[in-house]
Amino acid sequence: MMQPLFVLDTAGSANLQQQLMQKLVQAICNGHFACGSKMPSSRKLAEQLSIGRNTVVHAYEQLIDEGYLVSRERSGIYVRDDIYEHHAEARTAEPQSSTTSASEQDWQRRLNKLRLDSLAPPYPHNWQQYPYPFIDGQFDPSLFPVNQWRECSKISLNVNEIKNWASDSGQDDDLLLIEEIRTKVLPRRGIFASADEILITLGSQHGLYLLTRLLFNNQTLVTVEEPGYPGIRQLAQQAFSPLNFAEVNEDGIILEQIPAQTDVLYITPSHQMPTAVTMPLSNRQAIIDQAKKDDFIVIEDDYESESNFMSQPHPALKSMDTDGRVIYVSSFSKVVAPGLRLGFMVAPAPLIRQARQLRTLISRHPPANNQRVMGLFLSLGYYDQTLRRLNQEMAARWQEMREALNHYLSTRIVTSRTVGGSTCWIEGPRHLDSQQFAAEAAKHGILIEPVNRFYGSGGDRPRHYFRLGVSSIPCDKIREGIEQLADLMRQWEPGQNNSDANQQPTHASVKQWGKRLTGKALQDFASRCEFIGQTVFGDPYRIRLYADGSMTGFEGYQDERQDEGQWWLEGDRWFRQWRAWSYGETLGFEIYTNTNRINWVRDGKLVDSAFYILHPAGTPIPE
Amino acid sequence: MMQPLFVLDTAGSANLQQQLMQKLVQAICNGHFACGSKMPSSRKLAEQLSIGRNTVVHAYEQLIDEGYLVSRERSGIYVRDDIYEHHAEARTAEPQSSTTSASEQDWQRRLNKLRLDSLAPPYPHNWQQYPYPFIDGQFDPSLFPVNQWRECSKISLNVNEIKNWASDSGQDDDLLLIEEIRTKVLPRRGIFASADEILITLGSQHGLYLLTRLLFNNQTLVTVEEPGYPGIRQLAQQAFSPLNFAEVNEDGIILEQIPAQTDVLYITPSHQMPTAVTMPLSNRQAIIDQAKKDDFIVIEDDYESESNFMSQPHPALKSMDTDGRVIYVSSFSKVVAPGLRLGFMVAPAPLIRQARQLRTLISRHPPANNQRVMGLFLSLGYYDQTLRRLNQEMAARWQEMREALNHYLSTRIVTSRTVGGSTCWIEGPRHLDSQQFAAEAAKHGILIEPVNRFYGSGGDRPRHYFRLGVSSIPCDKIREGIEQLADLMRQWEPGQNNSDANQQPTHASVKQWGKRLTGKALQDFASRCEFIGQTVFGDPYRIRLYADGSMTGFEGYQDERQDEGQWWLEGDRWFRQWRAWSYGETLGFEIYTNTNRINWVRDGKLVDSAFYILHPAGTPIPE
Repeated sequence: MMQPLFVLDTAGSANLQQQLMQKLVQAICNGHFACGSKMPSSRKLAEQLSIGRNTVVHAYEQLIDEGYLVSRERSGIYVRDDIYEHHAEARTAEPQSSTTSASEQDWQRRLNKLRLDSLAPPYPHNWQQYPYPFIDGQFDPSLFPVNQWRECSKISLNVNEIKNWASDSGQDDDLLLIEEIRTKVLPRRGIFASADEILITLGSQHGLYLLTRLLFNNQTLVTVEEPGYPGIRQLAQQAFSPLNFAEVNEDGIILEQIPAQTDVLYITPSHQMPTAVTMPLSNRQAIIDQAKKDDFIVIEDDYESESNFMSQPHPALKSMDTDGRVIYVSSFSKVVAPGLRLGFMVAPAPLIRQARQLRTLISRHPPANNQRVMGLFLSLGYYDQTLRRLNQEMAARWQEMREALNHYLSTRIVTSRTVGGSTCWIEGPRHLDSQQFAAEAAKHGILIEPVNRFYGSGGDRPRHYFRLGVSSIPCDKIREGIEQLADLMRQWEPGQNNSDANQQPTHASVKQWGKRLTGKALQDFASRCEFIGQTVFGDPYRIRLYADGSMTGFEGYQDERQDEGQWWLEGDRWFRQWRAWSYGETLGFEIYTNTNRINWVRDGKLVDSAFYILHPAGTPIPE
Repeated sequence: MMQPLFVLDTAGSANLQQQLMQKLVQAICNGHFACGSKMPSSRKLAEQLSIGRNTVVHAYEQLIDEGYLVSRERSGIYVRDDIYEHHAEARTAEPQSSTTSASEQDWQRRLNKLRLDSLAPPYPHNWQQYPYPFIDGQFDPSLFPVNQWRECSKISLNVNEIKNWASDSGQDDDLLLIEEIRTKVLPRRGIFASADEILITLGSQHGLYLLTRLLFNNQTLVTVEEPGYPGIRQLAQQAFSPLNFAEVNEDGIILEQIPAQTDVLYITPSHQMPTAVTMPLSNRQAIIDQAKKDDFIVIEDDYESESNFMSQPHPALKSMDTDGRVIYVSSFSKVVAPGLRLGFMVAPAPLIRQARQLRTLISRHPPANNQRVMGLFLSLGYYDQTLRRLNQEMAARWQEMREALNHYLSTRIVTSRTVGGSTCWIEGPRHLDSQQFAAEAAKHGILIEPVNRFYGSGGDRPRHYFRLGVSSIPCDKIREGIEQLADLMRQWEPGQNNSDANQQPTHASVKQWGKRLTGKALQDFASRCEFIGQTVFGDPYRIRLYADGSMTGFEGYQDERQDEGQWWLEGDRWFRQWRAWSYGETLGFEIYTNTNRINWVRDGKLVDSAFYILHPAGTPIPE
């Protein structure tokens, strides 16, 4: 006989009775249990689902209380026949959508011609299933402050708190949240604002939307970064505002490319979107000065304000703003969770007043329960706690990625020097098409981000750049991921259409490597040589070899990082092992020299390359 | 990490100590350094700002001289506790804020000329403190489903659920919520839609904003109800769309006033905003037909869909829509809580697709955690439960208000006949200015809603109309509130500038009442008389008196409501007591008759009035 078969997640954390009730109500509403029909006995259902009978009994009882079921004397439990006949209609599974008659064209005719390119991220929706998601701006469940958030959410649901958020607060924001932002979040960024200069938003994008509606029109010359955040370009298009693209270098936006006619300048100084470079203080001051001189407004999008893992974060541009020209936009997405859609905006009071009215017209206010929970989260110090944990974790991942890139990709890529941030901007080999390469990598479970979408000007976009992010990939996956990415990139090289490690180098490449050192020549070379090169992040390094087989390494401008190791020869190959560097692994190479360059070759492939100098024989070995 | 982060322009000309002092004063005035709190040591601050320690020491010294700081022996330097007496600017932190230089005019010059009239509700912010808040659309904590919401919120915070909502879902909505709306909420309104025809919004206003951005331009003729919802008028103004006002009668919008040139028609059929009248099915069909004939789009704002306390709710207009011309907008605010900002929109797929993209551009998606909690709330059947509880409560309050209005205000007001809804549209005495009267009532703790803001056309607005709502006032407060309102209204009458009950009626009014019945005449009249009148809601009633002192009453078109009672004479006054009607209280009146009208008079005031007929003497008394 036909019985409905529910699958209950007996392992799941939602308790069984809830799950069961959920399924039953569902089944009743979509007519699986017809109105007036008899329900299976609690015993039978319990057996069938292999759960305790009491669970079923209690579920039935509650559904009777809720008016879904009725109990009939000496007969059993039935679906009420009166109350849900309209639900029964829902049995006609997927009703033919009324779209049929309102044809596509019909609506195209009616709809305003808004230029709405999709803002969907460039990676697959199920990115979480990929083993190596080097993507940015997404959410890592393992970093979400589950317990603290639960606690705050619980507090927000006590009867008195509910009164604080449940009513329509009209234009107003949660006072607690405003005060916490004012006294805890902003001062850390060097900003001191009064309550009437702060507006809660549904994330940065919402803040930018309000600003563009208020400040942009077809006369407004908007200067943006190139490459830069696509959202701002779209918003400017909506307002028919002319765009001016200012290129970005190692110091962020290039000041000379900000025209005096600019009306609004949009920048991301703390970590430029997408290159993640940080603007030095001097440039920030220069922008403040120019804004005053040329009388324009600056929108500072501090989208990754808090994540600066290598050093103390710079204060926000807004903190240098002495005459109210800088509008500061930020969000809690990176620290808590993007799904919550919570952010804020700091600007002169007259602007905030207008923005508040516009916000009211669009959707009243950001959900007040979330505002309250966030306020509690801040006031209990959980925000700082989370931030610290987050920064530690990101710093670790960031280091892990540095190591890996350095180790596996040093000869193939160049990265922009960035202080912290959760992404790395990478220039691949010239022949690399990052679109195609990203697609190929995805097939191997590696998600990287091609960067075409960040370029807005008609100009030719460097096709060989891409981004790697660490905010969504666990630390212990990074090395593997980069290693596999490196293999893939090697296969990508011209004349190498597979990763067969044993194949012979082409004559051409050998020639290019120079003369191979063997026997005594190699012995002599290795005993008194010093290599000077650059890491993949552009930091200088030097490695000194000594006759006794010891070696020392220094990296960074002030030799910040050091390590020691051993080197030796096996046959005509040079082996080395660092204490920590290169994962402390033993590795052997063939050594080629070409004038004053040394080339390390493994398995017929060039692994690394540097300048070298030879010290006089018999230089004393340091203690 | 929690330390304030000043930026000092070390290059800049202004000397460091000056800069430091400015920043410190600002921080003190903004309350970042609270009164009496300890300042960071000069050493620590100097390190942090990487400036000479002496600079800090001198800055501190000067601020001590200026009375911002005090130095305590062997303890350190503190902010003065009495700083507010000493420094005016400290009392008002705002002037310190960057607003100072960005003047009002300055921003007026920059801001787009958006016509943003405040949408703030017309009642005081602390309405909850008023004993008799007869206002609408607000929140009653006593009706919020605390436990069920808590439970769902708890479930949404288990680790697996968090994964479902915490990430940025891009354009997508919560699948559970969509499915619950599709199979539970919409069928109850007679609507069957597919998932791609449903969009989650931040409440009705958000849905309307999206629609106006997509459908309205300066060519779009928008027909709205008059009086009607102010929000839609503002949105149309934003889009520079011409407005056409169609008046409202007992059946909602007057069909004849919907011009054929209409491009978009905005209506609130289930309960017209603000009169709360319900549109009959025949009119709905007529509108569907005209929309097809004249090729226009209908926006149905079902803002109070679920509350229909007197009878089964009509199906939505959308349910009659056979060719995708009706866009259905609704919200969960009335059932759960407005503070959550959750609603939805049903429309043909092509429109929903565009609306979704626009929504993404504005603020991505409505907060996903709330979507999930609401989805669980529905799936566990708590929504229906809440709805039932809500409807019972509202029905009770509604009845209570009917009774009270009937009892205390029958001669002074006329109400529009409404089936359910949570508000009552009231026509007061002609001489009443509802604005002034509402202000006066508020002084007595009674909040009523003047209705001027609902009128958009230039035409003269009836100044003597107002609204009473029951969604925010507890049942047991309603009678008191109405009684006091009635007293107030009596005082408002010409020639009666106080509520002194013992004062004598004016000669004029007595004359108007007709001839007073006394002694045998009254006895004979009362023994065989029948009154025929109308309740304050326009329903007919008739009351038959019998010689034996019994009486029977019938109210409604089918005599739906009945009661029995006793009457008798004391001196020349006629007394009556109903079982239930008029709160079952004993009340005595002077009886005046004027041709075929009877006038009940108490304390020199006309209390009620009706037609009467006299039955032949000795008519048998029914068993």
